[in-house]
Amino acid sequence: MFIRSHYLLWYVSPMKDRVLRIFSKLAEPVDAIMLVNDEEPIADASFFHATGAVSGLFENCSAFLYPDGGMKLITTRLEETSARSTPAEVLPYFTPAERAELMRSSLKGVARLGINSSAITYHWVKEIKAVAPGIELVDTASALIAARLVKDKVEIEAMREACRIASRVADRIPDLVQVGMAEYEAAAEIGYQMQRLGASSVSFETIAAFGPPSAEPHHSPDHTRLKEGDAALFDFGCKVRRYCSDITRTFFAGWADERMMRMYEVVLEAQRRAIEAVRPGALAREIDEAARSYIDSTELKGTLIHSTGHSLGINVHDGARLAPGSELVLEEGMAFTIEPGTYVPGVGGVRIEDDVVVTRNGCELLTDASKELRVI
Amino acid sequence: MFIRSHYLLWYVSPMKDRVLRIFSKLAEPVDAIMLVNDEEPIADASFFHATGAVSGLFENCSAFLYPDGGMKLITTRLEETSARSTPAEVLPYFTPAERAELMRSSLKGVARLGINSSAITYHWVKEIKAVAPGIELVDTASALIAARLVKDKVEIEAMREACRIASRVADRIPDLVQVGMAEYEAAAEIGYQMQRLGASSVSFETIAAFGPPSAEPHHSPDHTRLKEGDAALFDFGCKVRRYCSDITRTFFAGWADERMMRMYEVVLEAQRRAIEAVRPGALAREIDEAARSYIDSTELKGTLIHSTGHSLGINVHDGARLAPGSELVLEEGMAFTIEPGTYVPGVGGVRIEDDVVVTRNGCELLTDASKELRVI
Repeated sequence: MFIRSHYLLWYVSPMKDRVLRIFSKLAEPVDAIMLVNDEEPIADASFFHATGAVSGLFENCSAFLYPDGGMKLITTRLEETSARSTPAEVLPYFTPAERAELMRSSLKGVARLGINSSAITYHWVKEIKAVAPGIELVDTASALIAARLVKDKVEIEAMREACRIASRVADRIPDLVQVGMAEYEAAAEIGYQMQRLGASSVSFETIAAFGPPSAEPHHSPDHTRLKEGDAALFDFGCKVRRYCSDITRTFFAGWADERMMRMYEVVLEAQRRAIEAVRPGALAREIDEAARSYIDSTELKGTLIHSTGHSLGINVHDGARLAPGSELVLEEGMAFTIEPGTYVPGVGGVRIEDDVVVTRNGCELLTDASKELRVI
Repeated sequence: MFIRSHYLLWYVSPMKDRVLRIFSKLAEPVDAIMLVNDEEPIADASFFHATGAVSGLFENCSAFLYPDGGMKLITTRLEETSARSTPAEVLPYFTPAERAELMRSSLKGVARLGINSSAITYHWVKEIKAVAPGIELVDTASALIAARLVKDKVEIEAMREACRIASRVADRIPDLVQVGMAEYEAAAEIGYQMQRLGASSVSFETIAAFGPPSAEPHHSPDHTRLKEGDAALFDFGCKVRRYCSDITRTFFAGWADERMMRMYEVVLEAQRRAIEAVRPGALAREIDEAARSYIDSTELKGTLIHSTGHSLGINVHDGARLAPGSELVLEEGMAFTIEPGTYVPGVGGVRIEDDVVVTRNGCELLTDASKELRVI
């Protein structure tokens, strides 16, 4: 009995805290917030953040959050078991008419309803207006994202595990990938190894880029085969209990020529400087600047053609970027990728990416794969 | 030169045909249709259907379709290369201000604008209203889905390949999975094998369910290990050039007891009847009825607890269901799963699923894996 109630306490409180945190971030008060998924792939990360539902798709299901931390979950029967694993009051439905009736009762007394404009489809906005014609819709996307940016212990633990798995696979790449292997085969191998270590899926389609394509940051793996002298860039991650990891390592096949070795050295130093800059109170643009200004002080000036990182959570790009101009103030519990790179078109690219969570004094490195220059 | 222009003709025409087909399905005329993706995972399948873009995420990119079959694509620089592989006029942008200006010019002379209410976020609806305050928005979701339901040759070819890959892996399951293996390990193996055969990714998280969990249609693979006497149900698929396959096979570990053998026999016959019913002019509910009425005529009455199938395309659930009450009229080129099942809680389930495309006289079976009762 003790274990059971202890478990429940631990389990229920983080979700209530998440709901309360969302309301604390609002610019103007609302009576409730409604989060809703349309059909796959259109899903609201905030729905899963607030409910904490670890399994289930929850298509056409909606969560109602209230200012006291309470939560209702209108769900299809198919997801009822998953719904009951959350602290929400579960309201199952069979038909659209039953669903409309449950929406109507959940909106009773609600004059101002918060929604997530970045995730709710127009179809659902019209549904709400049909069910509750007089209701005022308030866009609470910023508060929902601000609340999601700061991770609690349960979320950090899932990300730690996702990062641990990705790191172990990154360390094994020199054993998994050989000269002659095609990019798509290497991508398959990396995804497989992460799932064998317990990941539920990849967090995005693995990038494997050999030779000149490594200079394209979003290259899709194809039949290009690894040959000696190539840079071999791998950008991948996995999901554990819905939370993502995202790591990049660059290796060299056979040997690394002097230019590529220099690129590796510059990117590694840029990343070290950016990681060192991460601490509560720092601005997102300062982290970007730490990496970018170093690269721009070398002969590789201007070759960091993307932002230095992004927030990480249920989505891989989870609402914020470490980019020039971003005035976001870092707080304890925020999680980011730190991924400077340098790209020489027609030759190749080097990117080194790790995931960090902001701590009281600096940050914790969640991905701990080796960053020594390694030859495959 | 001949080859090049021949290639362009082949390539350009299906997209123009798709756009013209979308406009032909409209209940009321519009001057243009705008399809837009928000940030991952929020993407509109109709965007990819209409543009035919095979690679790229196209976050915050929009396609404008015109009644003459013309198309414009407002794209980030990151996706410019992918955008140029489509027949659309490509309009790249760097900043949100540039994007707004391109939207404004693309909407010039447009009084009534079609949108896909099932995929566009409220955020984007507000963007449109800010850029073009007087514009009338018309929900063209039904026309977009109706056009997507009927596949052209290019789409069917991609689905054939995705189905061929899934079928080859289904046939190899008795070699890949052994007694003692955990569900999550089997799921990893299946995904890996499909990618090794050339799939770009799985089309959804593979379901592997051993023993009693096979009675839960949407079971998430966990650490349950396969033991003798278990039913072993695998529901999986992959993507090729964005198009999905979706197959289910049920095996038995060591032996199948009489009850499970009977369940297998009933589901197989139900599926045979449903497949036989597929032809142009049939109603979706009639396909469902063919399977359901047979199961309900046996001692397993009432155990088919989901619909018999769904349309398949860029999304796994691509807009229509083979379910009781559905009056959709089947047409040549529509693609569906046919997946009756029977589930006995606490004991196990059997589901057999194939993908078909409607032909002039009946249907073509896209998945051709063996359906003999097999023991692992």
